[in-house]
Amino acid sequence: MGKKIVIIGAVAAGPKAASRLKRLRPDWEVTVVDQDSLISYGGCGIPYYVSGDVSDESELRATSFHVVRDADFFEHSKGVRMLTRTRALAIDREKKQVLVRNLDSNAEQQLVYDYLLLATGAKPFELPIPGMGLDGVFTIADLHRAIEIKARIAQGKVSRAVVIGGGAIGIEMAEALTDLWGIETTLLELAPQLLPKLVDRHFAMMLTRHLEEKGVIVHVRESASELLDDGQGKVCGVKTAQRVLEADLVIVAAGVRPRSELAQAAGLDVASWGGIRVNQRLQTTDPAIYAAGDCIAVTSLLTGQETYTPLGSLANREGRIVADNMAGIPSRFNGVCGSFIMKAFERCIAATGLTYEAALAGGFDADYALTAPSDRAHFFPDQAVVILQLVFDRRSRRVLGLQAFGMMNDSISARVDTAAALIAKGGTIEDFSLVEMAYAPPFSSAIDSINAAAHVAENMCDKRLRRVDLDRFLAWMEDMSIEPAWAVLDLRHPLESAAYVEKYGDKWVGMEYGQVRRRHHELSSGITYIILCNAGTRSYEVQVFLDHLGTIDNLVLCGGLNVISRLGVGWLLK
Amino acid sequence: MGKKIVIIGAVAAGPKAASRLKRLRPDWEVTVVDQDSLISYGGCGIPYYVSGDVSDESELRATSFHVVRDADFFEHSKGVRMLTRTRALAIDREKKQVLVRNLDSNAEQQLVYDYLLLATGAKPFELPIPGMGLDGVFTIADLHRAIEIKARIAQGKVSRAVVIGGGAIGIEMAEALTDLWGIETTLLELAPQLLPKLVDRHFAMMLTRHLEEKGVIVHVRESASELLDDGQGKVCGVKTAQRVLEADLVIVAAGVRPRSELAQAAGLDVASWGGIRVNQRLQTTDPAIYAAGDCIAVTSLLTGQETYTPLGSLANREGRIVADNMAGIPSRFNGVCGSFIMKAFERCIAATGLTYEAALAGGFDADYALTAPSDRAHFFPDQAVVILQLVFDRRSRRVLGLQAFGMMNDSISARVDTAAALIAKGGTIEDFSLVEMAYAPPFSSAIDSINAAAHVAENMCDKRLRRVDLDRFLAWMEDMSIEPAWAVLDLRHPLESAAYVEKYGDKWVGMEYGQVRRRHHELSSGITYIILCNAGTRSYEVQVFLDHLGTIDNLVLCGGLNVISRLGVGWLLK
Repeated sequence: MGKKIVIIGAVAAGPKAASRLKRLRPDWEVTVVDQDSLISYGGCGIPYYVSGDVSDESELRATSFHVVRDADFFEHSKGVRMLTRTRALAIDREKKQVLVRNLDSNAEQQLVYDYLLLATGAKPFELPIPGMGLDGVFTIADLHRAIEIKARIAQGKVSRAVVIGGGAIGIEMAEALTDLWGIETTLLELAPQLLPKLVDRHFAMMLTRHLEEKGVIVHVRESASELLDDGQGKVCGVKTAQRVLEADLVIVAAGVRPRSELAQAAGLDVASWGGIRVNQRLQTTDPAIYAAGDCIAVTSLLTGQETYTPLGSLANREGRIVADNMAGIPSRFNGVCGSFIMKAFERCIAATGLTYEAALAGGFDADYALTAPSDRAHFFPDQAVVILQLVFDRRSRRVLGLQAFGMMNDSISARVDTAAALIAKGGTIEDFSLVEMAYAPPFSSAIDSINAAAHVAENMCDKRLRRVDLDRFLAWMEDMSIEPAWAVLDLRHPLESAAYVEKYGDKWVGMEYGQVRRRHHELSSGITYIILCNAGTRSYEVQVFLDHLGTIDNLVLCGGLNVISRLGVGWLLK
Repeated sequence: MGKKIVIIGAVAAGPKAASRLKRLRPDWEVTVVDQDSLISYGGCGIPYYVSGDVSDESELRATSFHVVRDADFFEHSKGVRMLTRTRALAIDREKKQVLVRNLDSNAEQQLVYDYLLLATGAKPFELPIPGMGLDGVFTIADLHRAIEIKARIAQGKVSRAVVIGGGAIGIEMAEALTDLWGIETTLLELAPQLLPKLVDRHFAMMLTRHLEEKGVIVHVRESASELLDDGQGKVCGVKTAQRVLEADLVIVAAGVRPRSELAQAAGLDVASWGGIRVNQRLQTTDPAIYAAGDCIAVTSLLTGQETYTPLGSLANREGRIVADNMAGIPSRFNGVCGSFIMKAFERCIAATGLTYEAALAGGFDADYALTAPSDRAHFFPDQAVVILQLVFDRRSRRVLGLQAFGMMNDSISARVDTAAALIAKGGTIEDFSLVEMAYAPPFSSAIDSINAAAHVAENMCDKRLRRVDLDRFLAWMEDMSIEPAWAVLDLRHPLESAAYVEKYGDKWVGMEYGQVRRRHHELSSGITYIILCNAGTRSYEVQVFLDHLGTIDNLVLCGGLNVISRLGVGWLLK
């Protein structure tokens, strides 16, 4: 006889598991409950709905063949019983039943299950500050709130907005408000950088500079202490330790937390931070109860540690694996690299695996190769520089992560996705050095950027390439007394280096790349030269040459001026 | 004491090896000889130079920092001795020396080596037909020929062109001539399809249709038997078994062959088809002599067999590995997947690994999952359908290859590069199902196209999805008597299916996807229904449902009308 399946949550993991299960076991009875009326939507599309790129919210709930995924759709097309506006109140593990209540009729019923799936998702973190309840203050909790935000903007009610939280959603919302609606938008982030934990600081700096160029006002190390009332219950501003920001719209995007109250009340193992613990088959500590999506703790494939990666893409993968296992197919979910990508105006920023900071914190003998290659053949018309950083472990030579910042196209996807595939397989620097990137000039370089980054990493591991610490170099540019023996050796064309030589005198030596083999005797042995060019490749070659001479101390500025010019530092000329 | 290195060939593998070697062993004496005056160029960029996308040939020989890589550059910037216009005549393995002749002075000298690298590249296959020597007939042998072609076009001397050879270079040249210069261009290919061996027939059909839409005249199964003389030594046409084509320019792009005469004369092991045989360290049968680039035989990572993949990207990888090994770093080159990508007007076509046809020929229990997903979130404005085919082995579940045809952007790079990375690691369908593709709506779908293709493959392996053979279906549409019991079950919206139902009567049943669970009793048990929708996903769901009922024979048309509409078949309505 067919089994009875109950699924709590109908956004991503839930509907995916339900649909797959009905295909694997057409005779099983699958019931999905969700407290919302709008279900099975692409939550990651919300910023694009608010911006107007996606004109109607129903598109976020539609299939690729333009049918809206409502309860009727699941009933008739999928054979899934879908109970919307229905809240799960309690799980009785003994009797294997879930008590649910219809939020319109208040009618309650017990749903009996053989297997239960908790796909309860996440809830936005509500800031513990005054004013969170004011009119005009929103979290991105569900599609209804997004619809409200857009309606308010479309009615011309918003001229100044503050977005609290510099994670991906906050940044995407800031772009949507600024770009499409021309709203003066300020982005606040408590941490010292945007996208904390997702990218290293210099990548966040590049992103910040681009956001500022596009008109977003960005304040990091700054948190809201109060949302201000206009006297009539409507928000009129945001107070921080540094200032008061006027605002008629406040979006709080301060991260999300797993919704795990039901699991906790049912006595299942839940991490202190709220993630429901599951095994590789995504079973909770009760083998009849599975969990998937934004409510679970997952394992990092890099550290083996518990981590939290609330992503629609993972939720869908997990939902499918739950269906498999319920149906007797022993699929496993081994863990995550944690790939991330986002559009920010005309740029793309992405990462997979560990940042340098996270790798150090994880006890790795970590270092990083920072490069600035072209995103396709450098002679091809539309080519542009991309900043690419490979994080690796010097001891094992394992690659731990990749970060990229470049133009808004799919070229970064190609590198980050390839990296994630290799990292999940324990890929080493040598694997990255050899990985075959399909080559034609409109798409890539004969030596692809990801191969080139691996070459740099290899040269670092083998101690042929010694880099200057980027932060230390930036600090020295602000105050050269901190490293009195340093000077820059600028290998660029004299037309590029002349203004710097003029400004910094003997602290900035111009010597064109092609002349070093003839002019190296002009360099002084008491000085440590920071070798600098546009991308870092010439600098490395000159380092090797100078090291062979053996008398000239030197370090390479990896990524060269291509990185520096994107950081928004003040000392750059022109 | 430093060793002496001689390198023959200065296009890709040679200069790469030389430069790397001087970085690893600055005190070694590295000499490169090449019979050409133009060296170290991006040969893959030639079509883009001819088209005008790249305005000057020197850009193909320039570094990313815009310095031309001539002999002087190698001398002064790299410390490499570069002898251009110098032909290697013979290798004396006993004395470890190479006899070379300067083509201008005719002076000869012996170059002594500790290690020798053969980077002699490839030569275009010259067709054994009359007229190959006529004025106006070109092979793409080197940059000089490309410069001549472009000069001729720019002078307005070309109004009709024939390109012989429907491989990547032939197609790129046909695009260059048609698109930028408005030249009436005919593309001839001897094989039954364009890109033979690189993609399966239906992918070649999609490409052909797009080329034809863009004005290229394509004839497959047609070869040139003679190039016609206008009586003054200039080409005026191309004769084939089917017709005479007028032409004032003929480009012969009929593939390339390894240049291995020197190796052969020196008694090194050379395959019958000309590839120089090397071990994983890229040593020939003489351990002091290495070979790399378009002149060597490589190993397929899929079949373990000897294969030939003349690609600039591989030449660069190999050159680096040669330098490592000469310098004592034990790098290895294990083999190739054979990734390939190209722009064709507004489309991109790419592949890695084995085609279905090659997989069958290689003895695999091969099948393919043909899909037609969106290249990014289907609700995102710029999304477009991409045709993606995963080739796999049913027994081992190993993925053997991926082919893709879609819009001209980098989204296909992302999938093909990820696939190549996994295939090189022996990736299975399950690996493809789980591989983490960085997700945000502007870049991908929550279930990425590559994951979805793996799901289809898995469902095929597990016998949940049974597909109709595409060629058989196309044949049936031309002559329905070959399968009298077949009928189409069209799940699309009635507005989409109505015209077909009207035209084909009881051979074309329209039943909207969402109604099948209510209307399935209208289907007849004596008929085999070919289930069809736009992308194939609805069809699979309905197959599972019908199979569960157990009375209705059926097969799925994988990829659905999205594939069919790209093939250029005549029976499509609108």
